[in-house]
Amino acid sequence: MFHTIIQFGDHRYPFMTGVGVLAEAGNYVQELHIHQYMIITDEHTPDHIVKETEAAFGRLAPVRVLTFQPGEEWKNLSTVHELCKQVIDLGADRRTAIVALGGGVSGNVAGMVAGLLFRGLPLIHVPTTLMSASDSVLSLKQAVNLTQGKNLVGMFYTPKLICVELPFLQSLAERDLRSGMCELVKNLLAICPERINEYRRKLRPNNQYELDELQQFIAFCIEAKTKVMADDPYEKKDGLVLEYGHTIGHALELTCKGKYTHGECISFGMLCAAYISQRLGLLTAEETAMHHELLERIGYQVELEPEWLPIIEQYVQNDNKRGYRERRPGCTGMVLLNGLGTIHREDDAWITMVDNSLISEAIRSVQERRAIMHGSRT
Amino acid sequence: MFHTIIQFGDHRYPFMTGVGVLAEAGNYVQELHIHQYMIITDEHTPDHIVKETEAAFGRLAPVRVLTFQPGEEWKNLSTVHELCKQVIDLGADRRTAIVALGGGVSGNVAGMVAGLLFRGLPLIHVPTTLMSASDSVLSLKQAVNLTQGKNLVGMFYTPKLICVELPFLQSLAERDLRSGMCELVKNLLAICPERINEYRRKLRPNNQYELDELQQFIAFCIEAKTKVMADDPYEKKDGLVLEYGHTIGHALELTCKGKYTHGECISFGMLCAAYISQRLGLLTAEETAMHHELLERIGYQVELEPEWLPIIEQYVQNDNKRGYRERRPGCTGMVLLNGLGTIHREDDAWITMVDNSLISEAIRSVQERRAIMHGSRT
Repeated sequence: MFHTIIQFGDHRYPFMTGVGVLAEAGNYVQELHIHQYMIITDEHTPDHIVKETEAAFGRLAPVRVLTFQPGEEWKNLSTVHELCKQVIDLGADRRTAIVALGGGVSGNVAGMVAGLLFRGLPLIHVPTTLMSASDSVLSLKQAVNLTQGKNLVGMFYTPKLICVELPFLQSLAERDLRSGMCELVKNLLAICPERINEYRRKLRPNNQYELDELQQFIAFCIEAKTKVMADDPYEKKDGLVLEYGHTIGHALELTCKGKYTHGECISFGMLCAAYISQRLGLLTAEETAMHHELLERIGYQVELEPEWLPIIEQYVQNDNKRGYRERRPGCTGMVLLNGLGTIHREDDAWITMVDNSLISEAIRSVQERRAIMHGSRT
Repeated sequence: MFHTIIQFGDHRYPFMTGVGVLAEAGNYVQELHIHQYMIITDEHTPDHIVKETEAAFGRLAPVRVLTFQPGEEWKNLSTVHELCKQVIDLGADRRTAIVALGGGVSGNVAGMVAGLLFRGLPLIHVPTTLMSASDSVLSLKQAVNLTQGKNLVGMFYTPKLICVELPFLQSLAERDLRSGMCELVKNLLAICPERINEYRRKLRPNNQYELDELQQFIAFCIEAKTKVMADDPYEKKDGLVLEYGHTIGHALELTCKGKYTHGECISFGMLCAAYISQRLGLLTAEETAMHHELLERIGYQVELEPEWLPIIEQYVQNDNKRGYRERRPGCTGMVLLNGLGTIHREDDAWITMVDNSLISEAIRSVQERRAIMHGSRT
């Protein structure tokens, strides 16, 4: 077991990882005098996980389960609105806690419901994917999509508790584990390059890991996030490094409609960002190669379909980082690295303005490199 | 002109009242580097007010106007969602400021749009009603309704600036001025009873006031609000006194569908709360009579329709104060006074649990008293 206190700015909350941690959740929320728990999850969360979570919170107070349709396309304000109404119909009041059960989408949707109802109900995250356990629940950012782009509406909202019941993660499909490992690779490249040598030996292309390895990975991700968020809880400065790979990655994610996971899409975005950083003289060829090597080690493999390219380019220009800096026609703001582990700062800003033509070149070049490697393998 | 800095907890923002203050707004938001302004208002805001506001902000940066349908029934998450999409379609980024132009509903709807887009865009309030200028913009609370009740979904969000262009208030209908004056009476009764003698002479049943009188009223409301919110910005403790009259008042507001203004409904709720406070030995008959006297002086006149009673009772039980305290079957939590100017505390809570039967008795009794007085007049 691994218990710690997350501290980002003034925001503090306990984080529990291990086997059987759900049974201990009650000890951490006693002072909230919670009357009832409402578990919000999507319909794909395995039955036994829902049942176990229901049973654990049911020992503390009455519990209800609300579900919504899985997938990014349901991560929107209409879903949040519908769930808010259901939660009220089930008799919620200010002593009702929302339990966000599932992956990143459940965490965000339930996080918005908790943040908005009565201007804030207690929120408990029970992440069931490696990605959510090691990444999304560690951010105070909640958000849902508009039809125009990802995560355009949201808020900062702090949970009261995170419970990672490790065996839940072992029931994941390999692609879901790999998605989480992509985030770990991001942390290695963008925040803690001094840990690369230790980790490159531990990574496996089949993404099968023991529970204690998963726990170690989560602990590392907490360490990396804390490094940049302790003094930047709202991720406006150094914390923006966590958006590495996200400008192009989000655009791919919206385009591919679920063919690739969030982590895979962000990884593609990191490869593009590395290409751009290298072209601008900010990364060496070896540092870019390290991106490819680490992602190879976790079995990363993304191939774009040719018709996606213009769609991706369109989405890139609607990215939600717009406006961190003055607009520049023909340019898009991106997080770039200036050497591994260091966000590039341009004119005192943490976002670098990149020519859209260079972005297109990067996407095509990364795609070709993958195609060549993939072709030479088969 | 009257310029001040509002300070509630760590939240600070400038508040300007006077003639021609809109022209000065730019001086207060320079450091935000705003690229464009989006004015959100409802379709009933008079044309000349929209035009003047557009012109004032248009001198600073490009400006767009977005409207939504007026009225409480459009104050919901669907309207917020629709406006968020429109704002993005018009090219918003993090340097876009939202200008909330209008009464309380515009303030809340635009406040939610600003709070949610990009997890928070700069918000400027340009209230055009006495109610919004002296009450709603002075709260950090933003909220919209669910079909199940008022203000059930929302957030705390701090504006960057408040501009009260006083002549806008003079174009109001008498009922809208009276609505704002109801809030002033609430502040006299619930926060600053030492000012009652000074104010009772100033109140007029026709609600026609000079600009300098309106300015004085607004300054008084700022003073009263600051008294309870300086150390309680989230209105969870002493700040809850601002909810005086709101439990039954909100229920009436939802029931009467616009026949009475927000202020009139809250006034009815205050009369009921005073009745209950007196029945519980917390207010004297003279203190309750003072409620009636001050409201008479501003021309208050509310008559319930008989079929409203059961609907009001139903809404009372869905009030959003639910859960501030342990539930008690057959009871509803209310803000009561223990003498004028003092919120009643019960078991260390700021909310008192009141028998639903006493609430029904209060509603009927206040209604009968009004009917008798009204009957004796005609």
